[in-house]
Amino acid sequence: LSAKPTLDVCLSPALLHLYDTRNAVVVIIDVFRATSTIAAALHNGAARVVPVASVEDCIAKGACTDNSITAGERDGKVAAGLQYGNSPLEYPAEFVRGKTLVLTTTNGTRLLHMVKDAAEIVTGSFVNLSAVCDFLVEQGKRVVLGCAAWKDRFNLEDTLFAGAVAHRVADHFSVTDDATRAARTLHAAAEGRPYIECLRDSSHYQRLSRYGLEHDMEHCTTPDIHPVLPILRGEDLVPYTATTV
Amino acid sequence: LSAKPTLDVCLSPALLHLYDTRNAVVVIIDVFRATSTIAAALHNGAARVVPVASVEDCIAKGACTDNSITAGERDGKVAAGLQYGNSPLEYPAEFVRGKTLVLTTTNGTRLLHMVKDAAEIVTGSFVNLSAVCDFLVEQGKRVVLGCAAWKDRFNLEDTLFAGAVAHRVADHFSVTDDATRAARTLHAAAEGRPYIECLRDSSHYQRLSRYGLEHDMEHCTTPDIHPVLPILRGEDLVPYTATTV
Repeated sequence: LSAKPTLDVCLSPALLHLYDTRNAVVVIIDVFRATSTIAAALHNGAARVVPVASVEDCIAKGACTDNSITAGERDGKVAAGLQYGNSPLEYPAEFVRGKTLVLTTTNGTRLLHMVKDAAEIVTGSFVNLSAVCDFLVEQGKRVVLGCAAWKDRFNLEDTLFAGAVAHRVADHFSVTDDATRAARTLHAAAEGRPYIECLRDSSHYQRLSRYGLEHDMEHCTTPDIHPVLPILRGEDLVPYTATTV
Repeated sequence: LSAKPTLDVCLSPALLHLYDTRNAVVVIIDVFRATSTIAAALHNGAARVVPVASVEDCIAKGACTDNSITAGERDGKVAAGLQYGNSPLEYPAEFVRGKTLVLTTTNGTRLLHMVKDAAEIVTGSFVNLSAVCDFLVEQGKRVVLGCAAWKDRFNLEDTLFAGAVAHRVADHFSVTDDATRAARTLHAAAEGRPYIECLRDSSHYQRLSRYGLEHDMEHCTTPDIHPVLPILRGEDLVPYTATTV
């Protein structure tokens, strides 16, 4: 009888050093809105998404990439020098199909670039919940669910998603850390209500609703509307299929 | 109409830099077991508790302090060179009255020494829940509830206590951060059950129960059995009274 692999939840990038990500599957979680937008773009046919840290990197990468879109926001607006924003609704199939989306985001990209030596790095949000869970079970490796948080501060939406994943895959992993238990309790407390209802008093919901982004956030918390698994290959996030391994 | 002061929960010492503790009341929380033991000792008549970082400091401080007890554990046992352990049950009135308890603990002491420029530093656990809440309301200043955690890892018991405090004083403070909301949700999920029941699957409960400390932990989670407020004066924790201000 072999022991089940562990599943941990890292609540903030500032705590990532406490977790061993070597040879683990790491899920980058930035529900509002980077990892929701990445799933939307790939599900709608983008060839790849290139996450970059800064607006400058985004402009430079876009300039040397054919058929690319540069995108990113700062303070709720399209950043100066970029073409599009960070909303999953901006990337319908007729616009994004076959293109490379070069995307800069504050929290999600930073966390993604902090993870070293993982077996696989994928991105998750409610929009691709089942795709994430299926992959974790299929791989059968140790898992670290990494919440992008907000400037290193704990946030509810990423933790709630981590709790949803931990709940779904519970039979396949062992849990040893309290952060995972807390995420599952938060998820259980949300049971029976749409996720967005549990997030209306969260910091991020309040911040983004000042920019009129309520509909965006509802989209980001709707389970499985973008059933695709973004997986890191080199510097690109591409849709996972058996043949990309 | 003046705005209410804010109340924040800091889930780990590794996140303390994100919070502004200047002129705030900071509550150090290390339920299992430092801040439970500190309250027990002072409630039972100890003159003061001196928290120190290392076993060496504890021995040195004890050697130059009249009528002192040196105490601290490492790996569940009294540390070599010290006299007593880290259990609140080791410090009944007939033993501890009038003495100075020099106590070394790993997580709680470290966090206490990290906080700079606070208006007041006090310690809290379930055993002195009401005393903590009464003080926060009386002071009417910004509050940071600092969870000692476990080697920087989030833990359930400290967060549950922070949620209990946040719940009790909710009418007097404004909440802007998601960590406080999560702590309150964890506390709400525990409603109607003894706190210890909600903590039996926590990492720390499991660790300490291997040392046979179930009864200790039940004591540490019993509300208000040690109604005293330990407050930092210089390097000493002493019982707060109106005249100590």
